[in-house]
Amino acid sequence: MASQQTRPARGMRDFLPEDVRRRDYVIGVISDVYRRYGFEPLETPALENIETLTGKYGEEGSALIFKVLRRGDRESSGETDLALRYDLTVPLARVVAEYRAKLPRFFKRFQIQPVWRADRPARGRFREFFQCDVDAIGSRSMVVEAELCTAVSDVLRTLGFGDFTIRLNHRRLLAGLLDAAGVPADLEGSTLVAIDKLDKIGADGVARELAERGVSDAAAARLLATFKEPLTIALARDLVRAIPEAAQAVNELEQILELCSAGSAAPHVRLDASLARGLSYYTGAIMEVAVPDLAGSLGGGGRYDGLIGMFLGENVPACGFSLGLERILVVMGERNMFPPFVERPSADLLVTLFDAASIPEALRLAAELRNHAVRVEVYPEPDKLGKQMKYAAAKRIPFAAILGSDETARGEVTVKNLGSGLQVSVPRAQLPQRLRDWLAEPPVPSPESRSRS
Amino acid sequence: MASQQTRPARGMRDFLPEDVRRRDYVIGVISDVYRRYGFEPLETPALENIETLTGKYGEEGSALIFKVLRRGDRESSGETDLALRYDLTVPLARVVAEYRAKLPRFFKRFQIQPVWRADRPARGRFREFFQCDVDAIGSRSMVVEAELCTAVSDVLRTLGFGDFTIRLNHRRLLAGLLDAAGVPADLEGSTLVAIDKLDKIGADGVARELAERGVSDAAAARLLATFKEPLTIALARDLVRAIPEAAQAVNELEQILELCSAGSAAPHVRLDASLARGLSYYTGAIMEVAVPDLAGSLGGGGRYDGLIGMFLGENVPACGFSLGLERILVVMGERNMFPPFVERPSADLLVTLFDAASIPEALRLAAELRNHAVRVEVYPEPDKLGKQMKYAAAKRIPFAAILGSDETARGEVTVKNLGSGLQVSVPRAQLPQRLRDWLAEPPVPSPESRSRS
Repeated sequence: MASQQTRPARGMRDFLPEDVRRRDYVIGVISDVYRRYGFEPLETPALENIETLTGKYGEEGSALIFKVLRRGDRESSGETDLALRYDLTVPLARVVAEYRAKLPRFFKRFQIQPVWRADRPARGRFREFFQCDVDAIGSRSMVVEAELCTAVSDVLRTLGFGDFTIRLNHRRLLAGLLDAAGVPADLEGSTLVAIDKLDKIGADGVARELAERGVSDAAAARLLATFKEPLTIALARDLVRAIPEAAQAVNELEQILELCSAGSAAPHVRLDASLARGLSYYTGAIMEVAVPDLAGSLGGGGRYDGLIGMFLGENVPACGFSLGLERILVVMGERNMFPPFVERPSADLLVTLFDAASIPEALRLAAELRNHAVRVEVYPEPDKLGKQMKYAAAKRIPFAAILGSDETARGEVTVKNLGSGLQVSVPRAQLPQRLRDWLAEPPVPSPESRSRS
Repeated sequence: MASQQTRPARGMRDFLPEDVRRRDYVIGVISDVYRRYGFEPLETPALENIETLTGKYGEEGSALIFKVLRRGDRESSGETDLALRYDLTVPLARVVAEYRAKLPRFFKRFQIQPVWRADRPARGRFREFFQCDVDAIGSRSMVVEAELCTAVSDVLRTLGFGDFTIRLNHRRLLAGLLDAAGVPADLEGSTLVAIDKLDKIGADGVARELAERGVSDAAAARLLATFKEPLTIALARDLVRAIPEAAQAVNELEQILELCSAGSAAPHVRLDASLARGLSYYTGAIMEVAVPDLAGSLGGGGRYDGLIGMFLGENVPACGFSLGLERILVVMGERNMFPPFVERPSADLLVTLFDAASIPEALRLAAELRNHAVRVEVYPEPDKLGKQMKYAAAKRIPFAAILGSDETARGEVTVKNLGSGLQVSVPRAQLPQRLRDWLAEPPVPSPESRSRS
């Protein structure tokens, strides 16, 4: 069987320890910030009944759903009864319907779980990837939008991002702008898709697309003129003065900006008339987070008052934001943004094994240190000391303990700093504190290790 | 669509906030302890190529694998190309083969992820459940077994378990005992399955099963006599004196006991000749953790030197332990073992909204407190104060802040203790510290709330 394929399945990834540590760190920051806003954690199963997902993601989305074959006698029928979670919004809608009586009137939940899509894998696009969703259900107040923008800002600032922009727009303002420019109502959807590409293909590209989609040159020109100057509340109000629905959208945007002004999002939020967002279900404000060195966004969201009630058969106001874990990780990796403790080795100290007789004493030392929260690996078998030191160095473990019978008799341990090569004898009772002191300052690299790097 | 099924799929569960907090707590303790032993986190994809799983779990296991239909043009063929992770051991074997050059000589990993099995759901048996696996690859030393027993003991003691037993046996000792009792070699497997039920069906039940499986009455009687007295190293040595392989197994067990004697596992490890473990792949020591109030085990493991190398085509020594998250949670729930911070409400304080004009000030207050790590929920819309207080009480949020314009002008906030009903004015700058003090001692319940409970 040696020749069997051992790579992960297409579009899937194994996360080796270093990857998991980075992912856990980012997930930890996101969860902590969201908890600080009173959002509560929710988790739903990877598999949903297939009817729960059918018809929820459009034709294109449906083709990307992983479907699970029936089992037992019905396996040969080729029928499917289950499907893998495609996003975290439909499961949320199902949960809101199922546990309505148990959930608070305003249900604020976050959910950080993988989703699966049978997309064509590409750079940064995977078939299993994590979504980090935060949603507030039950209120139409713009406090919700402002709190979401502020929470997302807190997440990104805590992770070390300073240069992100939260682009802000409103679906009903967009509809008004299209209307005012003379785009027919039935072309609204496809016009939004074209506008959403303004960043990527420029005004000329969008104009060409609009022409292809049947928008008249005059309407396209009027519409594109709208995006030339930076959008302000005053300008927006002026553009859609005659369209009450859109004027109300401008009021909502103004409120969101005002409510954001007190918090961390203030320097990051920017009105952007060309932000359209791909998904059709948005009904109000829409948001997207961008950083200069990443094409595409780190995440986005908005208000979608029609979707959460789909299983209840009624409208339930909702607004949410989804951060893309993989994209955040890519940018943080490229910018070297992970704090040292995330990148630290798997153990603080290796307890070496001298000979078979010394093993019980070595394990006692390990237990003592672990009780003081020192992370200790024990070399599993007696071996040449040099080989054990090499093992520690390869794993970047900064210290090694050597327990000779003389030291043990004196109540001491020899500790080697694998960076400097220095070796000192330490009374056992003092070792946890000494290690904590040493670990607080990184070990000085030896001339050899410096020249090798 | 109101009538659509909103329950999770059969055998699957939604985890509402309270569930997630409990699960996260247990997973956090397990990870922390394993990290302290130098184990590193690994994660693998939920979906594996179907060939990776085929033929690995026997006929019974194979029938329980969830298989994923091919997509696109091949969907109608009924063919499958992917399957959901069935355990964490086969993916580990794949990872060891794939990244061999990158992994340390002794690869110590833990992995806490869901697995999926199309088993008939029953009380405590789910189709999606978490395994918490810890494995050490690359050494045949009994230090590995001892470290695993000690780490598992540390996990359970940290969670608050004091009364668990780690049953310890050895597959080659078992084989020796069977041999010595006169059980034919070809009946070894089915005899082990019968013995494993001794706890459940008693000696008479096992005797009946052994007879059905073709073991002679004389051999069965000799074998069952072995399990009458508690196993000791001396007794074991005596029983298999004539069988060198089994005598060596006794030496290994003696070593494990000696190496455990220094650590937290010492008072919990107990030799048990009747422990057989269901899985066929074990080759050496086997372990299982039991608590008095749970039928079945909290987890188990052992040495399996043949399995990890399956994709490499060579033997790679390995020893591991798997804890069952759901069973640990069940016992902890029944025994009320979760510490108060796990059960605390989703926010420390609710900021109430007086009127529209006060919202910006309310959000500023929320931001200040969150910057001091206070978990703050903002009521999303101005409403009757009584309604907002009721909302806070229903969510067990202990404090509510009221920001009238007078207080704001004086730089103060009114804080209501929802337990006692007491209300005090606090200078804003002092609020974070005051809240921390109050939260350290639980709020005194009011006579009303006490009589209601």
